[in-house]
Amino acid sequence: MTRDRAVLIPALTNIATRLRIDSIRSTSEAGSGHPTTCCSAADLIAALFFAEMRFDPKEPHNPGSDRFVLSKGHAAPILYSAWAEAGAFDRSELLTLRRIDSDLEGHPTPRLPFVDVATGSLGQGICAAIGTALNARRIASPYRTYVMLGDGESAEGSVWEAANVAAQDGLDSLCGITDVNALGQSRPTMWQHDMEQFARRWRAFGWHAIVIDGHDMNAILDAFAEAKQTKGQPTMILARTIKGKGVSFTEGKEGWHGRAFKKGEELDRALAELDKQFVPAPAGVDLAAEIPKPPAAPAPAAAAKPFPAPSYKLGEEVATREAYGTALAKLAAVDARVVALDADVKNSTFSDRFEKVAPERFYQNFIAEQVMVGAAMGLAARGAIPFPSTFACFLSRAADFIRMAAISNVGIKMAGSHAGVSIGEDGPSQMALEDLAMCRAEPNITVLYPSDAVCAEWLVEAMATHPGPAYMRTSRPKTPVIYKNDEAFPIGGLKVVRSSSADVATVVGAGVTLFEALKAYDLLKADGIAIRVVDLYSLQPIDKDGLIAAARATGGNLITVEDHYPAGGIGDAVAEAVAEAGFVVRRLAVREIPRSGKPDELLDRFGISATHIVAAVRAVSAGRPVGAAR
Amino acid sequence: MTRDRAVLIPALTNIATRLRIDSIRSTSEAGSGHPTTCCSAADLIAALFFAEMRFDPKEPHNPGSDRFVLSKGHAAPILYSAWAEAGAFDRSELLTLRRIDSDLEGHPTPRLPFVDVATGSLGQGICAAIGTALNARRIASPYRTYVMLGDGESAEGSVWEAANVAAQDGLDSLCGITDVNALGQSRPTMWQHDMEQFARRWRAFGWHAIVIDGHDMNAILDAFAEAKQTKGQPTMILARTIKGKGVSFTEGKEGWHGRAFKKGEELDRALAELDKQFVPAPAGVDLAAEIPKPPAAPAPAAAAKPFPAPSYKLGEEVATREAYGTALAKLAAVDARVVALDADVKNSTFSDRFEKVAPERFYQNFIAEQVMVGAAMGLAARGAIPFPSTFACFLSRAADFIRMAAISNVGIKMAGSHAGVSIGEDGPSQMALEDLAMCRAEPNITVLYPSDAVCAEWLVEAMATHPGPAYMRTSRPKTPVIYKNDEAFPIGGLKVVRSSSADVATVVGAGVTLFEALKAYDLLKADGIAIRVVDLYSLQPIDKDGLIAAARATGGNLITVEDHYPAGGIGDAVAEAVAEAGFVVRRLAVREIPRSGKPDELLDRFGISATHIVAAVRAVSAGRPVGAAR
Repeated sequence: MTRDRAVLIPALTNIATRLRIDSIRSTSEAGSGHPTTCCSAADLIAALFFAEMRFDPKEPHNPGSDRFVLSKGHAAPILYSAWAEAGAFDRSELLTLRRIDSDLEGHPTPRLPFVDVATGSLGQGICAAIGTALNARRIASPYRTYVMLGDGESAEGSVWEAANVAAQDGLDSLCGITDVNALGQSRPTMWQHDMEQFARRWRAFGWHAIVIDGHDMNAILDAFAEAKQTKGQPTMILARTIKGKGVSFTEGKEGWHGRAFKKGEELDRALAELDKQFVPAPAGVDLAAEIPKPPAAPAPAAAAKPFPAPSYKLGEEVATREAYGTALAKLAAVDARVVALDADVKNSTFSDRFEKVAPERFYQNFIAEQVMVGAAMGLAARGAIPFPSTFACFLSRAADFIRMAAISNVGIKMAGSHAGVSIGEDGPSQMALEDLAMCRAEPNITVLYPSDAVCAEWLVEAMATHPGPAYMRTSRPKTPVIYKNDEAFPIGGLKVVRSSSADVATVVGAGVTLFEALKAYDLLKADGIAIRVVDLYSLQPIDKDGLIAAARATGGNLITVEDHYPAGGIGDAVAEAVAEAGFVVRRLAVREIPRSGKPDELLDRFGISATHIVAAVRAVSAGRPVGAAR
Repeated sequence: MTRDRAVLIPALTNIATRLRIDSIRSTSEAGSGHPTTCCSAADLIAALFFAEMRFDPKEPHNPGSDRFVLSKGHAAPILYSAWAEAGAFDRSELLTLRRIDSDLEGHPTPRLPFVDVATGSLGQGICAAIGTALNARRIASPYRTYVMLGDGESAEGSVWEAANVAAQDGLDSLCGITDVNALGQSRPTMWQHDMEQFARRWRAFGWHAIVIDGHDMNAILDAFAEAKQTKGQPTMILARTIKGKGVSFTEGKEGWHGRAFKKGEELDRALAELDKQFVPAPAGVDLAAEIPKPPAAPAPAAAAKPFPAPSYKLGEEVATREAYGTALAKLAAVDARVVALDADVKNSTFSDRFEKVAPERFYQNFIAEQVMVGAAMGLAARGAIPFPSTFACFLSRAADFIRMAAISNVGIKMAGSHAGVSIGEDGPSQMALEDLAMCRAEPNITVLYPSDAVCAEWLVEAMATHPGPAYMRTSRPKTPVIYKNDEAFPIGGLKVVRSSSADVATVVGAGVTLFEALKAYDLLKADGIAIRVVDLYSLQPIDKDGLIAAARATGGNLITVEDHYPAGGIGDAVAEAVAEAGFVVRRLAVREIPRSGKPDELLDRFGISATHIVAAVRAVSAGRPVGAAR
């Protein structure tokens, strides 16, 4: 790759012009898209791809390649144009943009091999970039991570969570570029072209900030060089740009944000203007990126040893959150890909047990759940197996990240502790009562909910090896161990923990409510009434056949009981699973905003204790509606 | 209220000691809680409540009262102690802390009249405080808003969203206090006692920042005075404090975060130390807060005029998002309490129509959804009727705020546009497919989903007057007007839009899928098959009787079709409603991560078009499972 600026700059300038043309052409062909935000970024992207990054266009997954995350995902057309320009695919494919038969989607997704994580929800790409940068450290690779943000995007709080964490971790392999084009979707941005507003913020957050004219190729190249020289802190290049740059009638104009040029006169005018911007350039300049060499010692792609079986005694009282921490620490020892992320609750989720075993793979995000999940996305995209964990209710802080992780189909392994009213006195702000709904809503998230420590440990191991995103809900109270240490818990299964040929109903629970169901079993048994009790440790996928079989064997009387609000939880999951077979479900769930109190008081007050299960069983087996049980 | 420091300071010092004692006593009695984080804040709280704020302890809802939001909600015991000290209730009640029969919950909730919004999920109180400060402007009241944060809390991105918005809006009636006690839950905080780290961030974000020793009463009083003098920008008082201050064996010590003193020796030692910290003080000092006078002209508590009926023609094509904007603008004109909040998408959600009518009640948050919803919470708590709106998928960015709004039961009226795959080419990152699940998960959120413009307008009016939080989902594509302008749409109702005595199935849709159902109706009719079509415009509450009646009249064949993932949406809502009557539901929903494409292509590809409905009707009426239809 040439470094002679006199040769380089005209060549890069012409690439930038081609990227503008390709972005405009492809969006016009699609009839929608954001060409003007591509035009502001074109010089930056040209310099980054053709004079700065080391990568292999034919092998985007090369583990030594520099990473680029387009945090301002609506500039997707220029990303695609740059990869086409680099030779990753034929330029003619650009005209399939946004078509149902094309992977060149409206916003980038990992359907494309050169996209690590889906972007398009602003403020997330920079969090994922922290993950890819942490991964370079994990595998001792010299690759660098570049991330481009919009100026409007900088209003998202997650950007500042990322800023803190990257500075705290001294991520000098991370280089941000903010394309300050001064125009948002509906109006000028908060600070428009007041570059000092940006610079003082990034500097205050501990970054090296460089303010440049984002259309001055020399300045761009200098900034990238300065970033690479900057040690001990990440760099943010703040580039003053013009939205719509290169097309006079859109430059700096409002009203062009999400608008393609109309085919015909409008498009032709734009292209004619751009055509005139090609400059004389020496022929035969080599702008192909340097292809990184494969690492001397490839990072392990599998666990070194099998996961050690749990070692509990039946009846021993252990909280599933504690078993989670124990299992995570064991995973740390057997699988170098496993990493853990915390948001200052490691002593409550028990992820501190992982930190003790593998402190170098334990990433502290302080109280910032968005960057915790976002960094996990970036880590997962680069081959790590990340376990971000916090209180389950605070995972909802990262709900939009979880949504994008599902779109990305990256293997983040989330754990949420302190589920439901059973946490007790801390009150509703600390109780997760919608986490199952949040995670089940995404069709590709595996949702697990262990009731005892043995199950919790095996499910942690299963999450690590099962592909794709996963969520495990753990509980605060201690519960007795009910399974033998070698019991198997396949994802998508369930356990029938009580059954007889005389069962009048099936009660499905998980977590603390399984033990309420077992108490109800004993109470009813004393009255000569038998029930089947099911431990639904896997909510998604769900054992449809197992549930239907239980329903058939117990007179079609199915009762679910969950420490969760009714919508989207166990009741809904079971109801959909058995609907096809014609069965309905009677649901016990928390049906109003709860309050502080003792765990047992709350289980009873909010309708999910053994007493309520007994009443529900009596009602359904007598053909009465369950409502009376509440 | 005395201003003589020589008299004031010993009196405040003794109050601070009493607040520490009360916080420790009440948490020990409860057996849990966070006494040491109360101890760090005690001097600040004493000065704030007894030398700074104007309020009426007997009438916390006095519209002229200064507001205090405890953003670090785990310090609840000192909040309760301060209100008891002020005379709001008897000090003896403090010992009911965290009991099921007490409103003194583990973290503050508006069950208590002096709490505006629930806190306990960090980083939210400061967003709500922006709302109460904006409200002062709305009602032209001189009241001030104070908000206390923790230093650990400052890692939350929402804090920096709030910082930007408050500075942008020049909210000089807002005064933040950060209790920098240097210890988080599980470890020291990111910046510990490096006060410059805090100061440079707040200054960079445009705030006036004052660094003080948070145990120096003179410095605290000076800082409050300086804040009040500061015009044009909000003030942040950064107070260096000691966690556990006042009890030597906890001062600055790790391991005491969420831990009450054990009754007996441990508690006795702590109390004995604190007892010695009372200082000689002149008797008879008046520390009662100044009670604000009622405003000369009270803010309106009702709409001035009735909402003007919509004026559409049957068959006219209007997107429900556009009708939302039209209705919002009409509301602006008739009800001074109505305000609107945007996150830079006003031209897509059509909330810009409100801005044109009432720019002074339109609050721009730029691309920062958390502070948008958080500010709405504060506004709602003070009598405004706030409508925050953005793309429905980006409301998930504020999922944890929505959760806390439900706990607070504040009347925020959310609208989310661009629902589902029917948005088309922009792709999955912009498609809301879990928003109904997110909002239905909260038991007290009203969830509405209009299909045509007439319904959308009337539902906007209904949201404004219906108490509590509400969510309305709007769609991107234009759909025909099917209702007369004077049709009534009560919350909790549904519309049967096609029916006959020969219907073989009921198809329940909403939004774009209602029109797919109507297409299916026509296709089936051509084959001599009649179906009932239901418009489920109110998902929560839901018309259980109406759905059961439709199921009964159509052979028990109920089909739902929704532009949403299956979990937590229309299918689940209908299934639970009819379960009691023994009916099951066959669901058509988006069952995998979608992609870019044309709206109609996507409806068909992901199984929710008229074609799929026709197949499902044929299957259920023939007794076959619906699975075959997908």
